Amino acid sequence: MEKLFVIKIGGHVVDEKASLDLFLKQFAAIEGNKILVHGGGKIATAIGRQLGIEPNYVQGRRITDEATIDLVTMVYGGLINKKLVARLQSMHCNAIGLTGADANMMPANKRPVVEVDYGFVGDIEQSQPSGSCILSVAGLQLFLNNNLVPVFAPLTHDGQGQLLNTNADTIAAELAAALSKLYEVRLIYCFEKKGVLADVHDESSVLSLINKERYQQLLQDQQIADGILPKLENAFAAIDRGVYEVLIGHANDLMENTTENTKGTLIKA
Amino acid sequence: MEKLFVIKIGGHVVDEKASLDLFLKQFAAIEGNKILVHGGGKIATAIGRQLGIEPNYVQGRRITDEATIDLVTMVYGGLINKKLVARLQSMHCNAIGLTGADANMMPANKRPVVEVDYGFVGDIEQSQPSGSCILSVAGLQLFLNNNLVPVFAPLTHDGQGQLLNTNADTIAAELAAALSKLYEVRLIYCFEKKGVLADVHDESSVLSLINKERYQQLLQDQQIADGILPKLENAFAAIDRGVYEVLIGHANDLMENTTENTKGTLIKA
Repeated sequence: MEKLFVIKIGGHVVDEKASLDLFLKQFAAIEGNKILVHGGGKIATAIGRQLGIEPNYVQGRRITDEATIDLVTMVYGGLINKKLVARLQSMHCNAIGLTGADANMMPANKRPVVEVDYGFVGDIEQSQPSGSCILSVAGLQLFLNNNLVPVFAPLTHDGQGQLLNTNADTIAAELAAALSKLYEVRLIYCFEKKGVLADVHDESSVLSLINKERYQQLLQDQQIADGILPKLENAFAAIDRGVYEVLIGHANDLMENTTENTKGTLIKA
Repeated sequence: MEKLFVIKIGGHVVDEKASLDLFLKQFAAIEGNKILVHGGGKIATAIGRQLGIEPNYVQGRRITDEATIDLVTMVYGGLINKKLVARLQSMHCNAIGLTGADANMMPANKRPVVEVDYGFVGDIEQSQPSGSCILSVAGLQLFLNNNLVPVFAPLTHDGQGQLLNTNADTIAAELAAALSKLYEVRLIYCFEKKGVLADVHDESSVLSLINKERYQQLLQDQQIADGILPKLENAFAAIDRGVYEVLIGHANDLMENTTENTKGTLIKA
Protein backbone atom coordinates (compact mmCIF):
# COMPACT_ATOMS: atom_id res chain seq x y z
CA MET A 1 0.00 0.00 0.00
CA GLU A 2 1.21 3.49 -0.84
CA LYS A 3 1.54 6.03 1.94
CA LEU A 4 -0.71 9.06 2.25
CA PHE A 5 -0.38 12.00 4.61
CA VAL A 6 -3.55 13.79 5.65
CA ILE A 7 -2.43 16.95 7.41
CA LYS A 8 -4.58 19.39 9.32
CA ILE A 9 -3.57 22.90 10.30
CA GLY A 10 -5.61 25.10 12.57
CA GLY A 11 -6.39 28.78 12.55
CA HIS A 12 -3.34 29.78 14.60
CA VAL A 13 -1.01 28.59 11.81
CA VAL A 14 -3.16 30.19 9.12
CA ASP A 15 -3.14 33.51 10.99
CA GLU A 16 0.62 33.88 11.48
CA LYS A 17 2.52 34.63 8.29
CA ALA A 18 5.89 33.38 9.56
CA SER A 19 4.62 30.02 10.88
CA LEU A 20 2.45 29.57 7.82
CA ASP A 21 5.42 30.10 5.49
CA LEU A 22 7.55 27.65 7.44
CA PHE A 23 4.71 25.13 7.45
CA LEU A 24 3.95 25.47 3.72
CA LYS A 25 7.60 25.05 2.74
CA GLN A 26 7.69 21.79 4.67
CA PHE A 27 4.33 20.69 3.30
CA ALA A 28 5.39 21.42 -0.30
CA ALA A 29 8.57 19.37 0.19
CA ILE A 30 6.77 16.18 1.29
CA GLU A 31 7.09 13.56 -1.41
CA GLY A 32 4.22 11.33 -2.43
CA ASN A 33 0.52 11.51 -1.65
CA LYS A 34 -0.67 14.31 0.62
CA ILE A 35 -3.82 16.22 1.48
CA LEU A 36 -4.06 19.46 3.44
CA VAL A 37 -7.08 20.45 5.54
CA HIS A 38 -7.14 23.95 6.98
CA GLY A 39 -9.22 25.54 9.69
CA GLY A 40 -10.55 29.04 9.97
CA GLY A 41 -8.47 31.54 11.81
CA LYS A 42 -9.20 34.85 13.44
CA ILE A 43 -9.53 36.58 10.08
CA ALA A 44 -13.10 35.28 9.67
CA THR A 45 -14.11 36.80 13.01
CA ALA A 46 -12.35 40.06 12.15
CA ILE A 47 -13.99 40.35 8.71
CA GLY A 48 -17.32 39.29 10.23
CA ARG A 49 -17.07 42.12 12.76
CA GLN A 50 -16.46 44.63 9.97
CA LEU A 51 -19.54 43.29 8.19
CA GLY A 52 -21.59 43.52 11.40
CA ILE A 53 -21.70 39.72 11.85
CA GLU A 54 -21.08 39.03 15.53
CA PRO A 55 -20.45 35.47 16.71
CA ASN A 56 -23.85 34.05 17.67
CA TYR A 57 -24.09 31.70 20.66
CA VAL A 58 -27.07 29.70 21.91
CA GLN A 59 -26.61 27.80 25.18
CA GLY A 60 -22.90 28.39 24.89
CA ARG A 61 -22.70 26.84 21.42
CA ARG A 62 -21.57 28.78 18.35
CA ILE A 63 -24.34 28.95 15.75
CA THR A 64 -23.80 29.16 12.00
CA ASP A 65 -26.62 31.44 10.87
CA GLU A 66 -27.12 32.51 7.25
CA ALA A 67 -24.81 35.52 7.49
CA THR A 68 -22.14 33.33 9.09
CA ILE A 69 -22.22 30.58 6.47
CA ASP A 70 -21.80 33.27 3.79
CA LEU A 71 -18.93 34.73 5.80
CA VAL A 72 -17.08 31.43 6.19
CA THR A 73 -17.76 30.52 2.55
CA MET A 74 -16.00 33.76 1.59
CA VAL A 75 -13.18 33.57 4.08
CA TYR A 76 -12.48 29.83 4.38
CA GLY A 77 -13.47 28.80 0.84
CA GLY A 78 -12.14 31.93 -0.88
CA LEU A 79 -9.59 34.06 0.93
CA ILE A 80 -7.72 31.47 3.02
CA ASN A 81 -8.07 28.50 0.66
CA LYS A 82 -7.06 30.29 -2.53
CA LYS A 83 -4.15 32.11 -0.90
CA LEU A 84 -2.85 28.77 0.41
CA VAL A 85 -3.19 27.29 -3.08
CA ALA A 86 -1.37 30.21 -4.73
CA ARG A 87 1.44 30.01 -2.15
CA LEU A 88 1.80 26.24 -2.61
CA GLN A 89 1.84 26.66 -6.39
CA SER A 90 4.75 29.10 -6.02
CA MET A 91 6.57 26.26 -4.20
CA HIS A 92 5.89 23.86 -7.11
CA CYS A 93 3.26 21.95 -5.20
CA ASN A 94 0.33 21.35 -7.56
CA ALA A 95 -2.39 22.28 -5.07
CA ILE A 96 -6.09 22.34 -5.85
CA GLY A 97 -8.42 24.13 -3.44
CA LEU A 98 -11.65 22.34 -2.60
CA THR A 99 -14.71 22.46 -0.42
CA GLY A 100 -16.88 19.41 0.15
CA ALA A 101 -19.24 20.73 -2.54
CA ASP A 102 -16.59 20.65 -5.27
CA ALA A 103 -16.80 17.42 -7.27
CA ASN A 104 -19.26 16.38 -4.55
CA MET A 105 -16.25 15.49 -2.41
CA MET A 106 -17.98 15.61 0.95
CA PRO A 107 -21.75 15.44 1.10
CA ALA A 108 -23.01 16.04 4.63
CA ASN A 109 -26.22 16.30 6.61
CA LYS A 110 -27.33 19.50 8.27
CA ARG A 111 -27.02 18.71 11.97
CA PRO A 112 -30.46 17.82 13.27
CA VAL A 113 -32.00 20.17 15.80
CA VAL A 114 -32.14 18.41 19.18
CA GLU A 115 -31.61 20.87 22.00
CA VAL A 116 -29.73 23.46 20.01
CA ASP A 117 -30.19 24.48 16.38
CA TYR A 118 -26.61 24.83 15.23
CA GLY A 119 -27.74 26.32 11.96
CA PHE A 120 -25.78 25.55 8.80
CA VAL A 121 -23.45 22.96 10.30
CA GLY A 122 -22.73 19.75 8.42
CA ASP A 123 -22.11 16.30 9.85
CA ILE A 124 -20.38 13.89 7.52
CA GLU A 125 -21.96 10.46 7.42
CA GLN A 126 -19.28 8.21 8.83
CA SER A 127 -17.70 5.75 6.50
CA GLN A 128 -18.00 2.35 8.15
CA PRO A 129 -15.56 -0.48 7.50
CA SER A 130 -18.60 -2.55 6.54
CA GLY A 131 -20.83 0.10 4.99
CA SER A 132 -20.62 2.39 2.02
CA CYS A 133 -18.65 5.56 2.34
CA ILE A 134 -20.27 8.70 1.04
CA LEU A 135 -17.04 10.65 0.73
CA SER A 136 -15.90 10.68 -2.90
CA VAL A 137 -12.96 8.28 -2.66
CA ALA A 138 -12.88 7.91 -6.44
CA GLY A 139 -12.63 11.67 -6.87
CA LEU A 140 -9.82 11.97 -4.34
CA GLN A 141 -7.98 9.10 -5.96
CA LEU A 142 -8.31 10.74 -9.37
CA PHE A 143 -6.55 13.82 -8.01
CA LEU A 144 -3.89 11.94 -6.06
CA ASN A 145 -3.11 9.66 -9.02
CA ASN A 146 -2.57 12.76 -11.15
CA ASN A 147 -0.20 14.39 -8.66
CA LEU A 148 -2.72 16.99 -7.58
CA VAL A 149 -2.66 18.00 -3.93
CA PRO A 150 -6.13 18.59 -2.48
CA VAL A 151 -6.37 21.54 -0.08
CA PHE A 152 -9.66 21.41 1.80
CA ALA A 153 -11.52 24.29 3.38
CA PRO A 154 -13.74 23.23 6.32
CA LEU A 155 -16.95 23.36 4.30
CA THR A 156 -19.31 20.61 3.15
CA HIS A 157 -22.72 20.70 1.43
CA ASP A 158 -26.09 19.04 1.81
CA GLY A 159 -26.62 18.09 -1.84
CA GLN A 160 -29.64 20.40 -1.91
CA GLY A 161 -27.65 23.51 -2.74
CA GLN A 162 -26.67 24.53 0.78
CA LEU A 163 -23.08 24.88 1.95
CA LEU A 164 -22.39 23.78 5.52
CA ASN A 165 -19.77 24.62 8.12
CA THR A 166 -17.85 21.51 9.25
CA ASN A 167 -15.08 21.15 11.80
CA ALA A 168 -11.67 20.83 10.12
CA ASP A 169 -10.49 18.10 12.54
CA THR A 170 -13.52 16.05 11.59
CA ILE A 171 -12.93 16.55 7.87
CA ALA A 172 -9.31 15.42 8.25
CA ALA A 173 -10.38 12.31 10.21
CA GLU A 174 -13.10 11.43 7.68
CA LEU A 175 -10.74 11.82 4.75
CA ALA A 176 -8.14 9.69 6.50
CA ALA A 177 -10.64 6.95 7.38
CA ALA A 178 -12.21 6.88 3.91
CA LEU A 179 -8.83 6.66 2.18
CA SER A 180 -7.45 3.98 4.50
CA LYS A 181 -8.88 1.31 2.23
CA LEU A 182 -6.47 2.47 -0.47
CA TYR A 183 -3.51 3.96 1.35
CA GLU A 184 -1.46 3.51 4.50
CA VAL A 185 -2.55 6.79 6.07
CA ARG A 186 -0.71 8.89 8.60
CA LEU A 187 -3.13 11.53 9.88
CA ILE A 188 -1.19 14.51 11.24
CA TYR A 189 -2.75 17.12 13.48
CA CYS A 190 -0.58 20.21 13.70
CA PHE A 191 -1.11 22.36 16.74
CA GLU A 192 0.81 24.80 18.90
CA LYS A 193 2.62 22.24 21.09
CA LYS A 194 5.29 19.69 20.20
CA GLY A 195 3.01 16.77 21.05
CA VAL A 196 1.17 15.18 23.94
CA LEU A 197 3.12 16.19 27.02
CA ALA A 198 3.64 14.04 30.11
CA ASP A 199 3.91 17.32 32.01
CA VAL A 200 1.89 20.18 30.49
CA HIS A 201 4.41 22.68 31.82
CA ASP A 202 7.36 20.97 30.21
CA GLU A 203 7.60 21.18 26.41
CA SER A 204 10.41 18.62 26.48
CA SER A 205 8.18 15.92 28.01
CA VAL A 206 6.63 14.81 24.70
CA LEU A 207 5.28 11.25 24.82
CA SER A 208 6.73 9.86 21.61
CA LEU A 209 4.39 6.88 21.30
CA ILE A 210 0.95 6.13 22.67
CA ASN A 211 -0.63 2.79 21.87
CA LYS A 212 -3.95 1.53 23.26
CA GLU A 213 -2.33 -0.09 26.26
CA ARG A 214 -0.41 3.06 27.17
CA TYR A 215 -3.56 5.13 26.60
CA GLN A 216 -5.53 3.04 29.11
CA GLN A 217 -2.69 3.45 31.59
CA LEU A 218 -2.58 7.21 31.11
CA LEU A 219 -6.35 7.41 31.52
CA GLN A 220 -6.19 5.37 34.74
CA ASP A 221 -3.41 7.52 36.12
CA GLN A 222 -5.35 10.65 35.08
CA GLN A 223 -2.20 11.84 33.38
CA ILE A 224 -3.87 13.40 30.35
CA ALA A 225 -4.59 17.13 30.35
CA ASP A 226 -8.23 18.01 29.63
CA GLY A 227 -7.40 19.90 26.44
CA ILE A 228 -5.68 16.93 24.84
CA LEU A 229 -8.22 14.26 25.78
CA PRO A 230 -10.64 14.87 22.87
CA LYS A 231 -7.68 14.82 20.46
CA LEU A 232 -6.62 11.41 21.73
CA GLU A 233 -10.19 10.11 21.63
CA ASN A 234 -10.47 11.27 18.01
CA ALA A 235 -7.10 9.72 17.21
CA PHE A 236 -8.09 6.29 18.51
CA ALA A 237 -11.49 6.56 16.84
CA ALA A 238 -9.66 7.13 13.53
CA ILE A 239 -7.39 4.17 14.17
CA ASP A 240 -10.42 1.98 14.93
CA ARG A 241 -11.70 2.97 11.50
CA GLY A 242 -8.58 1.79 9.71
CA VAL A 243 -6.22 4.78 9.82
CA TYR A 244 -2.69 3.38 10.10
CA GLU A 245 -1.38 5.97 12.55
CA VAL A 246 -2.08 9.43 13.90
CA LEU A 247 0.50 12.04 14.77
CA ILE A 248 -0.04 15.04 17.00
CA GLY A 249 2.71 17.62 16.76
CA HIS A 250 3.82 21.19 16.14
CA ALA A 251 3.32 22.77 12.72
CA ASN A 252 7.01 23.74 12.71
CA ASP A 253 8.01 20.08 13.03
CA LEU A 254 6.02 18.85 10.05
CA MET A 255 8.97 17.57 8.05
CA GLU A 256 10.31 15.35 10.87
CA ASN A 257 6.77 14.23 11.64
CA THR A 258 6.40 12.76 8.15
CA THR A 259 9.46 10.52 8.73
CA GLU A 260 10.09 7.61 11.10
CA ASN A 261 12.02 9.93 13.42
CA THR A 262 8.95 11.79 14.63
CA LYS A 263 9.28 14.69 17.06
CA GLY A 264 5.61 14.68 18.05
CA THR A 265 3.37 12.00 19.56
CA LEU A 266 2.72 9.00 17.37
CA ILE A 267 -0.52 7.18 18.10
CA LYS A 268 -0.90 3.60 16.92
CA ALA A 269 -3.09 0.61 17.65
CA MET B 1 -14.03 15.91 -32.48
CA GLU B 2 -16.24 16.04 -29.43
CA LYS B 3 -18.17 19.21 -28.72
CA LEU B 4 -17.42 21.49 -25.78
CA PHE B 5 -19.42 24.45 -24.54
CA VAL B 6 -17.53 27.24 -22.78
CA ILE B 7 -20.18 29.47 -21.24
CA LYS B 8 -19.67 32.83 -19.62
CA ILE B 9 -22.18 34.59 -17.37
CA GLY B 10 -21.77 38.11 -16.15
CA GLY B 11 -22.49 39.78 -12.88
CA HIS B 12 -26.08 40.68 -13.72
CA VAL B 13 -27.03 36.99 -13.93
CA VAL B 14 -25.10 36.16 -10.76
CA ASP B 15 -26.85 38.99 -8.88
CA GLU B 16 -30.47 38.08 -9.69
CA LYS B 17 -31.66 34.93 -7.97
CA ALA B 18 -34.50 34.21 -10.43
CA SER B 19 -32.39 34.56 -13.59
CA LEU B 20 -29.55 32.66 -11.97
CA ASP B 21 -31.84 29.74 -11.11
CA LEU B 22 -33.24 29.62 -14.62
CA PHE B 23 -29.75 29.79 -16.06
CA LEU B 24 -28.32 27.09 -13.79
CA LYS B 25 -31.15 24.67 -14.55
CA GLN B 26 -30.43 25.04 -18.24
CA PHE B 27 -26.69 24.78 -17.70
CA ALA B 28 -27.05 21.62 -15.60
CA ALA B 29 -29.19 20.02 -18.32
CA ILE B 30 -26.61 20.45 -21.10
CA GLU B 31 -25.25 17.07 -22.07
CA GLY B 32 -21.59 16.50 -22.75
CA ASN B 33 -18.56 18.65 -22.12
CA LYS B 34 -19.10 22.08 -20.59
CA ILE B 35 -17.25 24.75 -18.65
CA LEU B 36 -18.76 27.71 -16.82
CA VAL B 37 -16.97 31.03 -16.28
CA HIS B 38 -18.61 33.58 -14.03
CA GLY B 39 -18.03 37.25 -13.52
CA GLY B 40 -18.27 39.29 -10.39
CA GLY B 41 -21.52 40.99 -9.67
CA LYS B 42 -22.54 43.90 -7.51
CA ILE B 43 -22.14 41.86 -4.35
CA ALA B 44 -18.36 42.40 -4.41
CA THR B 45 -18.84 46.16 -4.52
CA ALA B 46 -21.48 45.99 -1.76
CA ILE B 47 -19.32 43.86 0.54
CA GLY B 48 -16.30 46.01 -0.29
CA ARG B 49 -18.21 49.12 0.79
CA GLN B 50 -19.09 47.47 4.10
CA LEU B 51 -15.41 46.67 4.58
CA GLY B 52 -14.42 50.22 3.69
CA ILE B 53 -12.94 49.25 0.33
CA GLU B 54 -14.07 51.82 -2.21
CA PRO B 55 -13.55 51.23 -5.92
CA ASN B 56 -10.22 52.82 -6.77
CA TYR B 57 -9.82 54.56 -10.14
CA VAL B 58 -6.68 56.03 -11.70
CA GLN B 59 -7.11 57.90 -15.00
CA GLY B 60 -10.58 56.42 -15.25
CA ARG B 61 -9.31 52.84 -14.91
CA ARG B 62 -10.35 50.55 -12.06
CA ILE B 63 -7.34 49.52 -10.00
CA THR B 64 -6.99 46.21 -8.12
CA ASP B 65 -5.10 47.23 -5.00
CA GLU B 66 -4.21 44.79 -2.22
CA ALA B 67 -7.49 45.21 -0.35
CA THR B 68 -9.40 44.70 -3.61
CA ILE B 69 -7.64 41.49 -4.62
CA ASP B 70 -8.42 40.08 -1.16
CA LEU B 71 -12.03 41.21 -1.59
CA VAL B 72 -12.49 39.58 -4.99
CA THR B 73 -10.66 36.44 -3.83
CA MET B 74 -13.26 36.16 -1.06
CA VAL B 75 -16.29 37.09 -3.10
CA TYR B 76 -15.52 35.66 -6.55
CA GLY B 77 -13.40 32.68 -5.46
CA GLY B 78 -15.41 31.88 -2.33
CA LEU B 79 -18.92 33.23 -2.02
CA ILE B 80 -20.09 33.28 -5.65
CA ASN B 81 -18.06 30.32 -6.92
CA LYS B 82 -18.90 27.90 -4.09
CA LYS B 83 -22.59 28.83 -4.06
CA LEU B 84 -22.76 28.17 -7.81
CA VAL B 85 -21.05 24.82 -7.28
CA ALA B 86 -23.41 23.80 -4.45
CA ARG B 87 -26.45 24.82 -6.54
CA LEU B 88 -25.19 22.86 -9.57
CA GLN B 89 -24.49 19.83 -7.39
CA SER B 90 -28.12 19.92 -6.23
CA MET B 91 -29.05 19.67 -9.93
CA HIS B 92 -26.82 16.59 -10.37
CA CYS B 93 -24.20 18.53 -12.26
CA ASN B 94 -20.80 17.44 -10.93
CA ALA B 95 -19.33 20.94 -10.70
CA ILE B 96 -15.87 21.75 -9.41
CA GLY B 97 -15.07 25.35 -8.51
CA LEU B 98 -11.71 26.65 -9.66
CA THR B 99 -9.54 29.71 -9.89
CA GLY B 100 -6.57 29.90 -12.21
CA ALA B 101 -4.33 29.04 -9.24
CA ASP B 102 -6.02 25.68 -8.61
CA ALA B 103 -4.10 22.87 -10.30
CA ASN B 104 -2.14 25.72 -11.92
CA MET B 105 -4.99 26.01 -14.42
CA MET B 106 -4.30 29.57 -15.54
CA PRO B 107 -0.92 31.09 -14.86
CA ALA B 108 -0.87 34.77 -15.75
CA ASN B 109 1.42 37.78 -15.74
CA LYS B 110 0.77 40.82 -13.59
CA ARG B 111 -0.07 43.51 -16.11
CA PRO B 112 3.05 45.61 -16.69
CA VAL B 113 2.92 49.23 -15.59
CA VAL B 114 2.92 51.47 -18.66
CA GLU B 115 0.84 54.55 -18.10
CA VAL B 116 -1.39 53.12 -15.39
CA ASP B 117 -0.51 50.61 -12.66
CA TYR B 118 -3.57 48.40 -12.66
CA GLY B 119 -2.37 46.63 -9.54
CA PHE B 120 -3.09 42.94 -9.14
CA VAL B 121 -4.50 42.33 -12.60
CA GLY B 122 -3.45 39.26 -14.54
CA ASP B 123 -2.99 38.91 -18.28
CA ILE B 124 -3.06 35.37 -19.60
CA GLU B 125 -0.28 34.62 -22.03
CA GLN B 126 -2.10 33.92 -25.27
CA SER B 127 -1.96 30.43 -26.59
CA GLN B 128 -0.70 30.65 -30.14
CA PRO B 129 -1.64 28.14 -32.83
CA SER B 130 2.11 27.64 -33.35
CA GLY B 131 3.41 28.14 -29.84
CA SER B 132 2.97 26.46 -26.51
CA CYS B 133 -0.09 27.18 -24.47
CA ILE B 134 0.43 27.92 -20.83
CA LEU B 135 -3.15 27.15 -19.81
CA SER B 136 -3.30 23.66 -18.31
CA VAL B 137 -5.07 21.84 -21.13
CA ALA B 138 -4.08 18.47 -19.62
CA GLY B 139 -5.67 19.42 -16.31
CA LEU B 140 -8.88 20.57 -17.97
CA GLN B 141 -9.03 17.42 -20.04
CA LEU B 142 -8.56 15.29 -16.92
CA PHE B 143 -11.64 16.92 -15.41
CA LEU B 144 -13.75 16.81 -18.58
CA ASN B 145 -12.84 13.16 -19.24
CA ASN B 146 -14.04 12.31 -15.73
CA ASN B 147 -17.36 14.11 -16.12
CA LEU B 148 -16.39 16.97 -13.86
CA VAL B 149 -17.71 20.40 -14.81
CA PRO B 150 -15.18 23.19 -14.18
CA VAL B 151 -16.68 26.42 -12.82
CA PHE B 152 -14.15 29.24 -13.05
CA ALA B 153 -13.99 32.37 -10.95
CA PRO B 154 -12.31 35.30 -12.73
CA LEU B 155 -9.01 34.92 -10.89
CA THR B 156 -5.58 33.81 -12.07
CA HIS B 157 -2.17 33.72 -10.36
CA ASP B 158 1.38 34.74 -11.15
CA GLY B 159 3.09 31.51 -10.04
CA GLN B 160 4.91 33.50 -7.35
CA GLY B 161 2.11 33.17 -4.80
CA GLN B 162 0.02 36.15 -5.88
CA LEU B 163 -3.59 35.87 -7.02
CA LEU B 164 -4.62 38.20 -9.84
CA ASN B 165 -7.90 39.68 -11.02
CA THR B 166 -8.67 38.72 -14.63
CA ASN B 167 -11.61 39.65 -16.83
CA ALA B 168 -14.12 36.79 -17.10
CA ASP B 169 -14.69 37.36 -20.86
CA THR B 170 -10.96 36.95 -21.39
CA ILE B 171 -10.80 33.79 -19.30
CA ALA B 172 -13.66 32.27 -21.30
CA ALA B 173 -11.97 33.17 -24.60
CA GLU B 174 -8.61 31.79 -23.50
CA LEU B 175 -10.16 28.53 -22.29
CA ALA B 176 -12.07 28.20 -25.56
CA ALA B 177 -8.99 28.88 -27.68
CA ALA B 178 -6.74 26.54 -25.70
CA LEU B 179 -9.25 23.69 -25.85
CA SER B 180 -10.01 24.10 -29.55
CA LYS B 181 -7.13 21.75 -30.36
CA LEU B 182 -9.09 18.96 -28.65
CA TYR B 183 -12.75 19.91 -28.97
CA GLU B 184 -15.14 21.59 -31.37
CA VAL B 185 -15.81 24.58 -29.12
CA ARG B 186 -18.87 26.79 -29.03
CA LEU B 187 -18.05 29.79 -26.84
CA ILE B 188 -21.26 31.30 -25.45
CA TYR B 189 -21.41 34.78 -23.98
CA CYS B 190 -24.59 35.27 -21.99
CA PHE B 191 -25.68 38.85 -21.53
CA GLU B 192 -28.86 40.84 -20.99
CA LYS B 193 -29.98 41.00 -24.63
CA LYS B 194 -31.14 38.26 -26.98
CA GLY B 195 -28.18 38.76 -29.29
CA VAL B 196 -26.61 41.32 -31.59
CA LEU B 197 -29.48 43.53 -32.71
CA ALA B 198 -29.84 45.11 -36.16
CA ASP B 199 -31.80 47.86 -34.39
CA VAL B 200 -30.74 48.43 -30.78
CA HIS B 201 -34.27 49.52 -29.90
CA ASP B 202 -35.87 46.36 -31.25
CA GLU B 203 -35.26 43.14 -29.29
CA SER B 204 -36.77 41.14 -32.15
CA SER B 205 -34.11 42.29 -34.62
CA VAL B 206 -31.50 39.70 -33.58
CA LEU B 207 -28.95 38.99 -36.30
CA SER B 208 -28.94 35.20 -36.26
CA LEU B 209 -25.63 34.72 -38.05
CA ILE B 210 -22.60 36.93 -38.54
CA ASN B 211 -19.72 35.64 -40.60
CA LYS B 212 -16.61 37.59 -41.53
CA GLU B 213 -18.14 38.90 -44.74
CA ARG B 214 -21.27 40.09 -42.98
CA TYR B 215 -19.15 41.61 -40.22
CA GLN B 216 -17.17 43.69 -42.74
CA GLN B 217 -20.43 44.83 -44.29
CA LEU B 218 -21.89 45.79 -40.90
CA LEU B 219 -18.72 47.69 -40.05
CA GLN B 220 -18.81 49.56 -43.38
CA ASP B 221 -22.47 50.43 -42.90
CA GLN B 222 -21.71 51.50 -39.29
CA GLN B 223 -24.57 49.29 -38.23
CA ILE B 224 -22.96 47.99 -35.04
CA ALA B 225 -23.75 49.66 -31.75
CA ASP B 226 -20.69 50.82 -29.78
CA GLY B 227 -21.42 48.51 -26.84
CA ILE B 228 -21.42 45.38 -28.95
CA LEU B 229 -18.35 46.17 -31.06
CA PRO B 230 -15.75 44.90 -28.54
CA LYS B 231 -17.78 41.69 -28.11
CA LEU B 232 -17.70 41.06 -31.85
CA GLU B 233 -14.00 41.89 -32.05
CA ASN B 234 -13.33 39.37 -29.26
CA ALA B 235 -15.54 36.80 -30.96
CA PHE B 236 -13.65 37.01 -34.25
CA ALA B 237 -10.33 37.02 -32.41
CA ALA B 238 -11.39 33.74 -30.74
CA ILE B 239 -12.42 32.29 -34.12
CA ASP B 240 -9.05 33.28 -35.59
CA ARG B 241 -7.47 31.26 -32.76
CA GLY B 242 -9.37 28.10 -33.65
CA VAL B 243 -12.66 28.39 -31.75
CA TYR B 244 -15.33 26.74 -33.91
CA GLU B 245 -18.08 29.27 -33.23
CA VAL B 246 -19.11 31.98 -30.80
CA LEU B 247 -22.64 32.69 -29.64
CA ILE B 248 -23.85 35.91 -28.06
CA GLY B 249 -27.25 35.59 -26.42
CA HIS B 250 -29.48 35.99 -23.40
CA ALA B 251 -28.82 33.89 -20.27
CA ASN B 252 -32.48 32.80 -20.34
CA ASP B 253 -32.03 31.31 -23.82
CA LEU B 254 -29.06 29.13 -22.92
CA MET B 255 -30.72 25.81 -23.76
CA GLU B 256 -31.70 26.82 -27.30
CA ASN B 257 -28.33 28.43 -27.77
CA THR B 258 -26.59 25.09 -27.23
CA THR B 259 -28.57 23.55 -30.14
CA GLU B 260 -28.57 24.20 -33.88
CA ASN B 261 -31.74 26.29 -33.50
CA THR B 262 -30.03 29.18 -31.80
CA LYS B 263 -32.00 32.21 -30.62
CA GLY B 264 -28.97 34.44 -30.21
CA THR B 265 -26.30 35.57 -32.66
CA LEU B 266 -24.03 32.87 -33.98
CA ILE B 267 -20.63 34.06 -35.10
CA LYS B 268 -18.61 31.88 -37.45
CA ALA B 269 -15.69 32.22 -39.81
